[in-house]
Amino acid sequence: MPRYRITVEYDGAPFVGWQLQINGPSVAGAIANAIAQLTGRETAVHGAGRTDAGVHALAQVAHFDLDTAWDRLKLREGLNACVRPHPIAILDVEGVSDDFHARYSATARHYLYRIVNRRPPLTVELGRAWHVGQPLDERAMQDGAAYLVGRHDFTTFRSAECQAASPLKTLDAVTVSRLGEVIEISASARSFLHNQVRSMVGSLKLVGEGKWLPIDVKRALEARDRSACGPVAPPHGLYLLRVDYAEPK
Amino acid sequence: MPRYRITVEYDGAPFVGWQLQINGPSVAGAIANAIAQLTGRETAVHGAGRTDAGVHALAQVAHFDLDTAWDRLKLREGLNACVRPHPIAILDVEGVSDDFHARYSATARHYLYRIVNRRPPLTVELGRAWHVGQPLDERAMQDGAAYLVGRHDFTTFRSAECQAASPLKTLDAVTVSRLGEVIEISASARSFLHNQVRSMVGSLKLVGEGKWLPIDVKRALEARDRSACGPVAPPHGLYLLRVDYAEPK
Repeated sequence: MPRYRITVEYDGAPFVGWQLQINGPSVAGAIANAIAQLTGRETAVHGAGRTDAGVHALAQVAHFDLDTAWDRLKLREGLNACVRPHPIAILDVEGVSDDFHARYSATARHYLYRIVNRRPPLTVELGRAWHVGQPLDERAMQDGAAYLVGRHDFTTFRSAECQAASPLKTLDAVTVSRLGEVIEISASARSFLHNQVRSMVGSLKLVGEGKWLPIDVKRALEARDRSACGPVAPPHGLYLLRVDYAEPK
Repeated sequence: MPRYRITVEYDGAPFVGWQLQINGPSVAGAIANAIAQLTGRETAVHGAGRTDAGVHALAQVAHFDLDTAWDRLKLREGLNACVRPHPIAILDVEGVSDDFHARYSATARHYLYRIVNRRPPLTVELGRAWHVGQPLDERAMQDGAAYLVGRHDFTTFRSAECQAASPLKTLDAVTVSRLGEVIEISASARSFLHNQVRSMVGSLKLVGEGKWLPIDVKRALEARDRSACGPVAPPHGLYLLRVDYAEPK
């Protein structure tokens, strides 16, 4: 059966998240419906990153199988037509071998968290970034973030609902940068725990405000205790930016 | 009477435009209501650029008079609280002398038009840019735009509803640039005619598609005929970016 890999962009606001759930529309469900409408085939859509309710994606990756081979451009156009009016765009479609798995073949996931740091409310950025009114010191945030890089037990920064077998993860990089009033936090890892990025960002915000010292991030990490985490940052500032795969041999 | 200059950001989508109108909520009206609520004074709010329905602003400038002097930060906070839930943010408040006029003292206005040029539909950029599916050649667009720079009779690129006494305007600069799938068109002038930027962008899009040659922009300009203009670009791609004033003496 031909397998297809798709690159997907979406506005997370109207969805209960990537994964199919019984309590509302999911991104994977909307795409599965579009595939069924276009091809007549019910098929599971497997995503690389199971983004939460309200989290956006600029280049989520997913795969699914079809009964017959499709021209990739026709399949892309057809899916984009059928997925309307959901704010989901299929950016790219590629035929892949049947040992490709969007989730298990991924070698790295890259997330971006956007904060607009100013007193006045948001207008054109509403729903696209976290609005933080108190001045944040992005250098202190970067100092705090540095303690998170490497292989650690991330229990502190893991949702109680996380289903991962182990809280041990390797965080490859976290960077905090500011351009004017926008603070961007980038995080890269082979994989993340549930709510890990938003949990880390929530704690780094406390560092930025001066409520925590940078070293308090290390203390929170070493506590391996969910209650040591700062308030989790809201979903609408988070973007799944990119997913990497090993080059096909 | 103390006069205040404000810098204002807004999402133009829910408004009939900057100017007060009887057919719906305007940005100036929403700000005037916020001032009345905060200070008890009914006052006119004069803006530098009378943006149309759906047009956004990142730094519109306006002025108004109050009966009593206000601390600028308190006035900003109060206005932002009272203007809710409209997507309007007062970014800055400054006391100015009573010969300052947001509209008549302005020495330059800078607009930005954003196009997302790709086949797939928009998601996170929906309502924030013009979606153009056909590939656009931004270099041809820049070549066409160059004919518009300078002092010209812009009758071709002027709305039938334009109330300016003369169609003669001096366009200081137009630049077309691309970063990935985003094409940005910047236009600067002391002042613009009604719909001028969107009319120019609509014609430049025809150049980008290859339906017009760059020199057809010159022909359209010289025709001094509204019917020679390409279809006017939609409002949601346009941003009033900045307004300049002479430094106070």
